[in-house]
Amino acid sequence: MLDLSKPTSRDTSPDKLLDTSLGARVMERLAALAAFTDEPGALTRLYLSPAHRRAADALRDWFRAFGVEAVVDAVGNVVARYEGEIPGAPALIIGSHIDTVRNAGAYDGNLGVVAALTVVEQLARRGERLPFAIEVVAFGDEEGVRFPITLSGSRALAGTFDSAALDACDQDGISLRGALTAFGCDPLKVGAVARDPKKVLGFIELHIEQGPVLESEDLPVGIVTAINGASRLAVEMRGTAGHAGTVPMALRHDALACAAAAMTIIEDLARSQTGLVATVGRIDARPGAVNVIPGEVSFTIDVRSPDDAQRGRAVADIGSRLAALAQARGIALTIATTHEASACVCDPQVVTQIEHAVKRQGVRPLRLPSGAGHDAMAMASLGPVGMLFVRCEGGISHNPAERITVDDADMAMRVLLDVVRHFRPMSAR
Amino acid sequence: MLDLSKPTSRDTSPDKLLDTSLGARVMERLAALAAFTDEPGALTRLYLSPAHRRAADALRDWFRAFGVEAVVDAVGNVVARYEGEIPGAPALIIGSHIDTVRNAGAYDGNLGVVAALTVVEQLARRGERLPFAIEVVAFGDEEGVRFPITLSGSRALAGTFDSAALDACDQDGISLRGALTAFGCDPLKVGAVARDPKKVLGFIELHIEQGPVLESEDLPVGIVTAINGASRLAVEMRGTAGHAGTVPMALRHDALACAAAAMTIIEDLARSQTGLVATVGRIDARPGAVNVIPGEVSFTIDVRSPDDAQRGRAVADIGSRLAALAQARGIALTIATTHEASACVCDPQVVTQIEHAVKRQGVRPLRLPSGAGHDAMAMASLGPVGMLFVRCEGGISHNPAERITVDDADMAMRVLLDVVRHFRPMSAR
Repeated sequence: MLDLSKPTSRDTSPDKLLDTSLGARVMERLAALAAFTDEPGALTRLYLSPAHRRAADALRDWFRAFGVEAVVDAVGNVVARYEGEIPGAPALIIGSHIDTVRNAGAYDGNLGVVAALTVVEQLARRGERLPFAIEVVAFGDEEGVRFPITLSGSRALAGTFDSAALDACDQDGISLRGALTAFGCDPLKVGAVARDPKKVLGFIELHIEQGPVLESEDLPVGIVTAINGASRLAVEMRGTAGHAGTVPMALRHDALACAAAAMTIIEDLARSQTGLVATVGRIDARPGAVNVIPGEVSFTIDVRSPDDAQRGRAVADIGSRLAALAQARGIALTIATTHEASACVCDPQVVTQIEHAVKRQGVRPLRLPSGAGHDAMAMASLGPVGMLFVRCEGGISHNPAERITVDDADMAMRVLLDVVRHFRPMSAR
Repeated sequence: MLDLSKPTSRDTSPDKLLDTSLGARVMERLAALAAFTDEPGALTRLYLSPAHRRAADALRDWFRAFGVEAVVDAVGNVVARYEGEIPGAPALIIGSHIDTVRNAGAYDGNLGVVAALTVVEQLARRGERLPFAIEVVAFGDEEGVRFPITLSGSRALAGTFDSAALDACDQDGISLRGALTAFGCDPLKVGAVARDPKKVLGFIELHIEQGPVLESEDLPVGIVTAINGASRLAVEMRGTAGHAGTVPMALRHDALACAAAAMTIIEDLARSQTGLVATVGRIDARPGAVNVIPGEVSFTIDVRSPDDAQRGRAVADIGSRLAALAQARGIALTIATTHEASACVCDPQVVTQIEHAVKRQGVRPLRLPSGAGHDAMAMASLGPVGMLFVRCEGGISHNPAERITVDDADMAMRVLLDVVRHFRPMSAR
């Protein structure tokens, strides 16, 4: 077992090898990519759109400039392979996605792709070969905005893409199959995008945090332990509407008062457990007049955790506590599960390797879960995955106000390069 | 001081004098009145509408059938005077209103008018004269649906009608002045409707409860102690919207979680004090997505009490507790008062007289406040007022499902007749 805290023979002092303008270089490329939009005046780049095509072409040109060939695969991913010491060796895949939400920020997804490209640029311009290949993938469909599917690109690589999804249509009635063909892809070959797990050492994704933890901890980067699993519940409470003046408190069956008590129970439960978050995001009280006791209330609950067992217990707890509450108040209760997704745990050895790189770059290592979904979730069925989060201003994302600093981009690049240079295949899975 | 529990010389055994079909008679008249509607298939009878006119004419005809003349005064009230032993003596006014909300029930207001008419019928058909006159008034504008004013009829009698209200317009742009003229009234004479307090002994209004207290107490009637004062507050809470997955509980400024805690505080406060009610009837959480922490919430609070000091303390308490709560959670808070109405306390001697009548009729006397507003509120500035509540099914009102039983109507008639026959002017005010 090697001591990962000591540089190996592949290591060279960062001071010598790392371009100090790497952060600025990444930011310039992100600014250039942000120009590829389907909606003038905003950044909107949906899967297989003209803007997606132009972004893919720009990546291909950038790779070509330092002698690496990039191709667009059958599902629309941009894939560039940088061989290792022995051609044809298994590859470490790095990257993220280049599709965006509507009216997006410039960093979500794109930062991870540009950072991965810039890692390969650093290696290629120095002729530096590692004992494994590096593949950069710019996935095409992480946001799931255009079609009623998501993670199509990473699922195709992982071999979990359901070909029935080719018939899914966007709001203009264009099928995924048709959109792929128009993009220049062959939908019949999507199945062949699947990788042989033996040829893949793992997947490492760099991404903005999309949350406030790193900012509150005053850290440029953090190490992701897991992508949270999520449950979404739809709650209905039915009591009795009544005149706000004429019904004494003791005779009320106020559905909103019951919902308020339920919301405090949900918040208390989530606050009492590390890693768990629970959110009531929507509420509707009917009839909704200032002088009428609400007879019916519906609200949603979103529960997330990096630990599926914890999330399962929390959902069950919420169910039983709300049932007791509603019964005590004479309120009829229904709770329906509208969405359920398992957590994706990052590979412990990959997490440790990223953590060591963070330390080597002089940053206090902080482990944190990801509350949002990522391509790494799909890639986890192909091989070990890990993620490096980069601080973003105010935790704001999916918004033109999404921001990172040049210094943070620079540190993220140093850490990612360090991770790649020190990467070693998992000792066992 | 007379012992009110013993019959006086004016009293005759209810078994002999009271028609046992009084309840049925009242119900028949209510059914007949309910036919006067501006909206076929529903009961909608707005102030000064054609249906109001037809209802007023029906009342006049019913009075005339037992030899009492009814007139429509300058503000649209139907007024019938039944002289006492000495003509021109001060009058006890009894009655309620005959305007309704849209899609109303048949009892709100109309029951009190028909009961008062039927009391006079009982006296008139027997030639029974009291030591004072009885005036029956069917007020025309208690609900305040048509014009942006309310209690116009009772305010005119009380001398508190603001003549500026004559320029108020309905949604078709018709002014109250114009509507009065079209109804056959002289708007210039509204001021003259005001009564000389010396000529008025008091006002007693019989009305359905519009709440569930009598039903829950298994009582046909109850004695009103006061009409609740009310405060309405508009609350705004501003926190920080965020991703439901990426923001840990400890870093949240969730405006809806804060509102939920506020609602439990408000409910607990109202529950802890007899007579006080508080209701959050409307709530709006923004942006209102299942996976977004609400950044802004607005909600309303309706606070009522028969005791203005209690209500004032409750509003102040709510303000300070919500301020502390919001500060602790890092939420910006604004509370605006949107409505404020003082309580109207019923005259203690009138309350006692009604209570004695209830006991004489073999009913357990229950005192309760009125949560809804009534003409008695306006009449209180003219003289002593009292109210008798009649049980209504499920406390439902302002709804076609509004119901009372024939037996309860009968008991209400017996009590009202008893009150009137035993009424004596206040010993001091």
